[in-house]
Amino acid sequence: MPHYKLTYFNLYGRGETARILFHLAGVPYDDVRIEMEEWAGKKSDTRWGFLPELEVDGKKVAQSKAINLYLAKQFGFGGKDEWETARIVEFLLAFDDIGPMLYNVYVEQDPSKKAELTELTIDRGLKPLYNRFEKSLEENGNGY
Amino acid sequence: MPHYKLTYFNLYGRGETARILFHLAGVPYDDVRIEMEEWAGKKSDTRWGFLPELEVDGKKVAQSKAINLYLAKQFGFGGKDEWETARIVEFLLAFDDIGPMLYNVYVEQDPSKKAELTELTIDRGLKPLYNRFEKSLEENGNGY
Repeated sequence: MPHYKLTYFNLYGRGETARILFHLAGVPYDDVRIEMEEWAGKKSDTRWGFLPELEVDGKKVAQSKAINLYLAKQFGFGGKDEWETARIVEFLLAFDDIGPMLYNVYVEQDPSKKAELTELTIDRGLKPLYNRFEKSLEENGNGY
Repeated sequence: MPHYKLTYFNLYGRGETARILFHLAGVPYDDVRIEMEEWAGKKSDTRWGFLPELEVDGKKVAQSKAINLYLAKQFGFGGKDEWETARIVEFLLAFDDIGPMLYNVYVEQDPSKKAELTELTIDRGLKPLYNRFEKSLEENGNGY
């Protein structure tokens, strides 16, 4: 079995999906967690200036979605063929569209603006997205 | 060979990569281009409210990156194994990080703010990114 080393911050964020994949597969790995005060000194060692990064027998791949897709495929969670993989990637990316809207709500400090943005995000973002998810699940006809 | 139908706007945007993949592979497909005035009536027919969408023998997959990755794999441009695929996805996503910065420059109307944003985007966005690309290409040691 290859030697896996995952480097991320001591957070869930963009690293937790990979950790969950290791856990689900029962595959041991080095779970390296960089504390925020160490980050300034380590950033330039990363390939793109970001974490997470995954090393597989010393070879590095970066970008959380590239890492997650790779691990999912290695561990049998990436679909039984390329079509299933494409549909999985599609669903992951469909969730991304809501990210910036949620982020704007999260960082807004003014309480009344925050309430307004929350409502807008639910009505224009979350509700249509969840309706589409539901419809897509029904079309699949297998419950997931 | 399966029957491919790609639906997008009459633009490059998020559809052109898939068209280029068909072209490179020499694979025929229906190149359906929705004009902007038709879009309002067609949006609710799409799975997520966005284009492009790809149909393969009538089965649909959406989200441009899912489509592009699928076609690349089908046509032999997706890497010779899962590791190469992961590295390809990594490079594609590394380019994404610059997207929002470029978009902000593009939509800014005020000329002096636009100039300021352009400089900032070059210094803090493009230059570090291209330096990282160059380093990464050197590390690969094969010229690409």
